[in-house]
This record gives sequence, structure tokens and C-alpha cells, in this order.
Amino acid sequence: MAPPTASSTVESALRRIAERDKLVRAWLHVDDTGARARAAALDAMPAPAGPLHGIAIGAKDVFDTADMPTTHNSTLFGGHRPASDAACIATLRAAGAIILGKTDTTEFAAAGRDAVSANPHDLARTPGGSSAGSAAAVADGHVRIALATQTGGSTIRPASFCGIHGFKPTWGAVSREGVKMYANSLDTVGWHARSIDDCEQLCAVFGMAPGKIAARPLRLALCRTPFWDAADADGQAALLETAAHLVAAGAVIDEPAWPEAFAGLNDAHHAILWREGAAAFRDLAATRGELLHADFHARVASADNISDTTLRAAYDTAATARIAFEQIADGYDAVLALSAPGAAPIGRAPGSPVFNQLWTLMHVPVLSLPVARGELGLPIGISLIGPRFSDRALCAVGRRIEEMLA
Amino acid sequence: MAPPTASSTVESALRRIAERDKLVRAWLHVDDTGARARAAALDAMPAPAGPLHGIAIGAKDVFDTADMPTTHNSTLFGGHRPASDAACIATLRAAGAIILGKTDTTEFAAAGRDAVSANPHDLARTPGGSSAGSAAAVADGHVRIALATQTGGSTIRPASFCGIHGFKPTWGAVSREGVKMYANSLDTVGWHARSIDDCEQLCAVFGMAPGKIAARPLRLALCRTPFWDAADADGQAALLETAAHLVAAGAVIDEPAWPEAFAGLNDAHHAILWREGAAAFRDLAATRGELLHADFHARVASADNISDTTLRAAYDTAATARIAFEQIADGYDAVLALSAPGAAPIGRAPGSPVFNQLWTLMHVPVLSLPVARGELGLPIGISLIGPRFSDRALCAVGRRIEEMLA
Repeated sequence: MAPPTASSTVESALRRIAERDKLVRAWLHVDDTGARARAAALDAMPAPAGPLHGIAIGAKDVFDTADMPTTHNSTLFGGHRPASDAACIATLRAAGAIILGKTDTTEFAAAGRDAVSANPHDLARTPGGSSAGSAAAVADGHVRIALATQTGGSTIRPASFCGIHGFKPTWGAVSREGVKMYANSLDTVGWHARSIDDCEQLCAVFGMAPGKIAARPLRLALCRTPFWDAADADGQAALLETAAHLVAAGAVIDEPAWPEAFAGLNDAHHAILWREGAAAFRDLAATRGELLHADFHARVASADNISDTTLRAAYDTAATARIAFEQIADGYDAVLALSAPGAAPIGRAPGSPVFNQLWTLMHVPVLSLPVARGELGLPIGISLIGPRFSDRALCAVGRRIEEMLA
Repeated sequence: MAPPTASSTVESALRRIAERDKLVRAWLHVDDTGARARAAALDAMPAPAGPLHGIAIGAKDVFDTADMPTTHNSTLFGGHRPASDAACIATLRAAGAIILGKTDTTEFAAAGRDAVSANPHDLARTPGGSSAGSAAAVADGHVRIALATQTGGSTIRPASFCGIHGFKPTWGAVSREGVKMYANSLDTVGWHARSIDDCEQLCAVFGMAPGKIAARPLRLALCRTPFWDAADADGQAALLETAAHLVAAGAVIDEPAWPEAFAGLNDAHHAILWREGAAAFRDLAATRGELLHADFHARVASADNISDTTLRAAYDTAATARIAFEQIADGYDAVLALSAPGAAPIGRAPGSPVFNQLWTLMHVPVLSLPVARGELGLPIGISLIGPRFSDRALCAVGRRIEEMLA
């Protein structure tokens, strides 16, 4: 069977959006004209433009796009049109992707105004933030892939709530130039997809080398994290039952003693998030402070509560935990943990990042697999975590796990 | 005496540039019309706009400016006009500054094409790169202050070569949003100035808290660094003689045993610089590769030579050295080191960053003082270094040192 043309892919996406987006509200802007023109140009090419030829992709509205507004879901940026594409948008386009539009987000991927997007599994519930629209658009079948970001839990948590794949690469592996800045040592470009193959394809487009796993039973390490008590009963059950299924399918799963420094990681994340947020939002506070949401003024003023000494200690806690974590993780194919405390909550608030912050802070790659369900039948994701730069090996492990659970 | 009006400041700067810039070539763009309009508006205000009211400032041409071209000294960005100001440009403008124009830079503040700017002390010599034009414009009296960046030694080294003050803040203290990205964990916004007061004023505008020093003789730590043999004879003499003058003036100077990890810092810097550079330039290689200088293609391909394992070790070397350095530095008012191997070399190549990379990598603030001269009477700078977030305390130490050497 011939692959679909780029034009048929775009038309199919636009039809689905027309049918569904009044309810799901994943999109802040859909560039139907631009996408159709781009698809026609791709279909006219004698050979594929690249590995993403003709694939329609959504982008969270914190990625600069030269041909569409980039609003950060902020009244301060209504109709704002950047002069250039974000580096990763340009890279995806060069690989043949069609950027179909911009998806809703928690304001500045940070705080302030929530996204209005709904969870396709239950419209009363959040898809999770801050990459709410990207997760909803993928989960509801509008697009196969959508770009997200993660500073706390903004890629992995909505993937969990929406029953899709979420991938947060190693910090620094993908350029964050042209993506709204919140916390420079945490902000990470990530993505949502319907398959591990699509997750890994983006890793390849961004230049990450293939990884491999040993030809023996999987060795996994279970990590409840020091925040286990913050998980819902069905969240806890989802992780433990998934682990039990994997053992039954032949995996070896240990629960090693994790570094004591883990207990301080979410506090360290908080200090860094707020103090780096002060640097990030200082300009808006100075230039248009009267329009800026109080959440961002609070970050700009955060040195009043979070001292330089605390901040320095937070960076060093993260660095030492990173080293200690990998000394353990290097002995396993992957670490298994929760992607969220449980199923998506009711409302539009983004949900808790308590099971994501520590990994974001440690800069390690996380792949969330949609392999579990909670009490109400709602999706719960399981995170696979590996050492820094094991991104594509992690995809290989994820593929093996999906086969074992199938 | 009344302070000069903003308009007279701008006219004076424009006259100096008209007289001198045919020789010095500090500027890629001077916005005379915009600066005059802005000065008139500032002069018409009933009260100062902020602490930088009416001060004309140059900006290295890697800072996005909505009202001027931003070329990165690259043929790929000829005439490029961003839609928004870089965050730090917006913050300076909100404080009353006039952005007079854009200064020449090594291409993308990285490699490729050298700046054409000349060193005002000897036009045959480089002002130092990559912030060549900013240093030259300040040294030649065009402007009091100019924005620079530092990823290796791009702020401190040109300050040294040009006999002016250079300040590289703690990494992360100033937003780098809207500044061309090279290496995300190294890139730092910095500045050149004619006085420590101006250096510190920018720290204050960027929200850094005042620092203080103890009311007792200064305690300083001399650091030759593991790269001492790379210094010229007059560079070595400049540091040791400055230290001797300070001892004669009452300072206590030790030469502590520095961490052994210091020897690996410049190699770690190299690995991080090139691999983060791969992420930074991937989009340009993919979209306009045929126009992109070979230096940047080499960075995009750097994973062929610098493995993920090497990169991970580089990050961890930096993190552990940072902790070990501060355990020593916390016992002193500042660390004293070279800002460059010696005086400015002949030509337009940027010079060696060997005495800057380690501090950039450790994220610590550096203040370069123009207090020494080499054999030919050319300037040689001395670096003061402190723990992260001691930026304004470092300014206070620098002021005391200048008094002691006066």
C-alpha cells in the first residue's frame, strides 16, 4: 500500500480537528492554508524531503514560528509573530514535517493562565499541563506527533493523563533556541506521539545516535521515589502491577536503595525553577508589569525567599544526585517509575509534577508508556528513565516492554 | 554640574564614532535616528526613566533587537530583523538605556568569520573576540557600556586586551533569551564598561542583591591555573606583580592548593562546547548548510569524536570542580587570576580563552580589571573571581583593589 500523500494527511487532520476541536480545544491556531500549500509542495517532490516527509505535527504555542502567531497563551503576546522559527521547528521542517498549527499551553509553559484544552478520555478533566493542547491533539487523533516542553512535568504528565507516548530527551540534546524560556537549566524540548517509533524518529532527526540493549532478559530498577505517598492508590497499583506483569514476562526487576539526596531533589527543583524564573520574567515585569500575571511577579521577587546560598546548594544537590543516580542506573536497562500521581484530575489545572521534577532536574531522558489504567478506566503512564544520552536505548527498552505487556 | 542630557550623550557618541570608527570598526550598525528620538523622549520625561537614564549602550550583534538588524556577523543573517528585543535589551531599555547600535562579533559569537574590529591601543591588533566590537567601542570612548557574551572567554579576554573593565556574571543570573545560542550551559550575558560602578549598576538592574566585604585587610587567593605555562612572560609578570603590589598595600594573599580536577576543566569545556554547539547549529546545517561555515558543520558532527560518555563525564567534572572550588573560594574575598595569556596579538583572530574557559564552565562571576601593562605598554587584565552569586561582592572587592593600586 502506498503511503498517504502529504495532502491527504493534512486533509484528514483538518477534518478531525473540524469535528472534534470545539470540544477538545487543543489548538490556539491551525494554519490550514499554509499546511495545504506545504503538503502540495511535498507531494510534488521527486523524492522524500526527509524522514518526516509529509507528517503533520502540532507545536505547543511556546515555539517560535515565523508563519504563525506565537502567543505563549499570554495576553502580553496576543498575535505576536516571531521573525524566525525556533531551531527545532526549522529542523523538523527540513526533515519534511508539516507544522499544522499551535497548541494550547499553560501561560509561558509555566503558571498564570491554564490551557482550556480538555482530556479526550473525559472532557471534564485536564489533559495535563503545561503541554495540554499537544497531548490532547495527539490523544484525540488530530496529529501523530506534537512538540511539547518540560521544565517540571509538562511533557510526561500530560502524556500519562492522555494515554499517549511522551518523550523528554536528555537536557541539552535538542536546541531550545526560540522556545519561551522559563528555567534555563530545566527547560527541555520534548514530544508526544502515538508510538515509540515516532518518538525515536524525532530523536534521530535531532541527531541522537542509535542505542542498543543486551540480548538477555531485561533488567529494570523500580523507583517509587521519595514522593510515593503523594501517589493515588490506583497510581501506586499501576506501577506495581506493571512491574509484576514484566516479571511474569521474564524481566528481572530490583528495587535498589536510591541515593538519600533524592529526598531533596524536588526542593532543589523548586529553588532553581523560581530563581531562574526570576531571570526569565524580569524583562516583562519591567516593561509590561501591569499586564503580567501575579504568578510571574512572584517569580521575579523570589530572591526575597530563596537565597543565593539555597540556590547554590540546589544546583549542587542536583549535580551530585545526577552522578549517584547514574552509578545505579548504569547497571540496568532502565528505571521504572510513575509518570503522574494517578489519573487526570477534574478541571483545567495542570496536575502535580511531583513524579517528574526529579528527573527533569537530573537531565535524564524519560519515556512515558501508556500501559496502565486507573480505577475509572482512565490512562496512567509509566515512566522509563535512563542515564543522560541513553535516549534511543531507552526507546529500544520501551519497545521490548510493550511487546512483553502486549 | 547637571548631568548631561540624553541628547548630548548621544550626539557626543555619534561624533566620536564618526571620527574614529573608520579605523576601529567597532560597529556593524549605528541607529542614529532611533537613538536621537529615544534621547529626546528621555529628555522630555519629568523624572528619570530608571538608573540607566540616558546612558548610551552598545550591544554585540548577537542580541536580538526589534528596531535594528541582528546579523551575528553571519552571511546567513544579513539584514535579519527579530520581532522582539532580547530579554536583557528590554530590561536595559526599561531602566532608561539607549541602545545606540550593534557591535561586531566573531560569527555567532563562536567561530567562522572573525570580527574586523581593531584594538584602539594598536590598530594592527585584535580587540579580542568574540565580543570584539563591544570592547573596542568602550575602549575607544564611543560608549560607556556595551553588552557582550561569554561562552569561552569572549567578554573577559577582550576587556583584557582593550584595557577596560569586563564583567561576566554568574551563569543564569541574566536571561539569555533572544541571544544567539552556542552552548547552553556556558553562554553567559556579560558587559564591558569604563568603571566598576557601571559594571555593578548593570548587576543591580538585572536584580542582583548588593554584596559586602569585611572591614579588614583583603584576603585573596592567587590562582595560576593548570594552564600557567600557556601565559606569556609579561602576562605571568602582570599577575605576580599585581599580587605583590596588593601585598605591599596590605592585602593577604595565599596560593592554596587548587583541586586536581582543575587540570581537566578546559578539556571538559571543549567537550561541552562542541556537543552543545552541535545542538545549536543543527538547524542551520539542515536548512542552509551550503552557506554555513565549515566550523559550524564541524560542531554539528562533533558526536563522531566526542562520545556521550565523554560528554557526561565533562558535565560531572565541571559540577564537582565547582563544588571544590567554592569550598576554597568561600574562605577568601576573591580569587586573583589572569584574564588572558598576555597582551593582544597582532591580527583579527580572537585570541586564546585558556584562562577563561574554566571559570565560564564553573559558572562563577569574573570581573576583569585593567590594572596591568605588558612589555609593549599594551593592557593586560587581571581577573577577580568569586563563588556563584557573589557578583556584587566581587565588584566591592574590585573597587577596594583599584583604590589599593591607585
